Amino acid sequence: MGVIHIGRSDDPRVDDFRDLSTADRRPDRPGGRGLVIAEGTVVVSRLLASRYPVRALLGVQRRFAELADDLAGLDVPQYVTSAETMADVVGFHLNRGILAVADRPAPLTVAEVTGGTGPIAVLEGVGDHENLGALFRNAAALGVGGVLLGPGCSDPLYRRSVRVSMGHVLRVPFGHLADWPGGLDDLRARGFTVAACTPRPGSIPLPALREHAPGRVALLFGAEGPGLTEAALAAADHAVRIPMPAGVDSLNIATAAAVAFYELARGG
Amino acid sequence: MGVIHIGRSDDPRVDDFRDLSTADRRPDRPGGRGLVIAEGTVVVSRLLASRYPVRALLGVQRRFAELADDLAGLDVPQYVTSAETMADVVGFHLNRGILAVADRPAPLTVAEVTGGTGPIAVLEGVGDHENLGALFRNAAALGVGGVLLGPGCSDPLYRRSVRVSMGHVLRVPFGHLADWPGGLDDLRARGFTVAACTPRPGSIPLPALREHAPGRVALLFGAEGPGLTEAALAAADHAVRIPMPAGVDSLNIATAAAVAFYELARGG
Repeated sequence: MGVIHIGRSDDPRVDDFRDLSTADRRPDRPGGRGLVIAEGTVVVSRLLASRYPVRALLGVQRRFAELADDLAGLDVPQYVTSAETMADVVGFHLNRGILAVADRPAPLTVAEVTGGTGPIAVLEGVGDHENLGALFRNAAALGVGGVLLGPGCSDPLYRRSVRVSMGHVLRVPFGHLADWPGGLDDLRARGFTVAACTPRPGSIPLPALREHAPGRVALLFGAEGPGLTEAALAAADHAVRIPMPAGVDSLNIATAAAVAFYELARGG
Repeated sequence: MGVIHIGRSDDPRVDDFRDLSTADRRPDRPGGRGLVIAEGTVVVSRLLASRYPVRALLGVQRRFAELADDLAGLDVPQYVTSAETMADVVGFHLNRGILAVADRPAPLTVAEVTGGTGPIAVLEGVGDHENLGALFRNAAALGVGGVLLGPGCSDPLYRRSVRVSMGHVLRVPFGHLADWPGGLDDLRARGFTVAACTPRPGSIPLPALREHAPGRVALLFGAEGPGLTEAALAAADHAVRIPMPAGVDSLNIATAAAVAFYELARGG
């Protein structure tokens, strides 16, 4: 373990990092390994501080030096190489200069995801990796306690989502709601008021949400474009909308979520 | 004028649409033409409703049909072609299926940009085209009256910014603050309170901003990462921050702006 210098890009010890742009890492597909990749010192640092079991790091000397405090006492291989060899391994030039790879831990239960404080976000059909990553970043910044994924959501641990989230998918607890939309009843039984975010007229304006939902809130979001299904809307306690001027269709889903998270965090 | 069928991709009548991914359209460079490109029916529709003088449209028949109401009475060439010929002209396959090109109108003055209602956004060093476009989209959705660009900002009329903004750069008035940060005094003289958005400790928490700035507000944003310069911070009336938990660095600039716009729009 410890520091290992890698001189050749075909060294099998760095296979976890190989061909990142084409590798199929989905755990739900045949041969899919589901490894979690962190890129750059900020995200790698968050991975090292997370519950995710780190397998190895690969990077240039300078980036390892920047992470010295985070790496102290870590008993996994630290593969040090040149920028050129690293580019040959991963398949493209990575100007962030360091990568870490981790296994997936056991999924969290709904009880674990909802066991903290603050509101939670519940997503239906959010398949865009960037939007999903951005939503986790916004959740972390605005005091959201956890994220539950309903049907049609992509994998928050995709490399692109991890990167866009600035590593916060590794910190904000998340899990899946297998029963849909029945699982929303389970949230209600846990004390949540379920508020569906939708632009449709007649919904409660967001600034008034607290009057209707004084306790813990589960904010329900659908994908940009199609929005929430009728079944999901019907299963919510309230529908809530961000007031907008005429002629404006909507906000990006992650941005709308940030505004709703902020409203619940601001108190008042 | 009217509908013109284009059978060959080398037809000089569609030169405005040629090689969009490589063409230099910056008006501030030698040979730069500064044409404004709108992509897809939603953005083209916003362009047609804007003050921008449209030169021509290029698209497939189906997309023209979808825009029939917007096109009624329009006296500019409508170049109808196949998806293949269109791809050959623009240099890539465009699945939005329609483009419009416009000239730049005269820039707006500060008086014109600030002449509406609602807060305004003032930007320093926002060079990322996607962030800039997203900020305009958020400004439109949350009642911002205009955007003023200080030094170091990119061009909101870049194709990518227009697209990410969903065409709202064509609707939200914007202009430049040539004198920096002295131009902020001009805003004060026009009745604005200038509030600099910054994560630094000691700033006013965003939910309390209204207590300090009851009238019209100019919200000042710097680029993600470096943030606002000391000179800009010193020239503001207040510094304001979005409250965040420990261990979270920041929000994306457009998202932070959305949250601040929302706070000012929500009243209360």
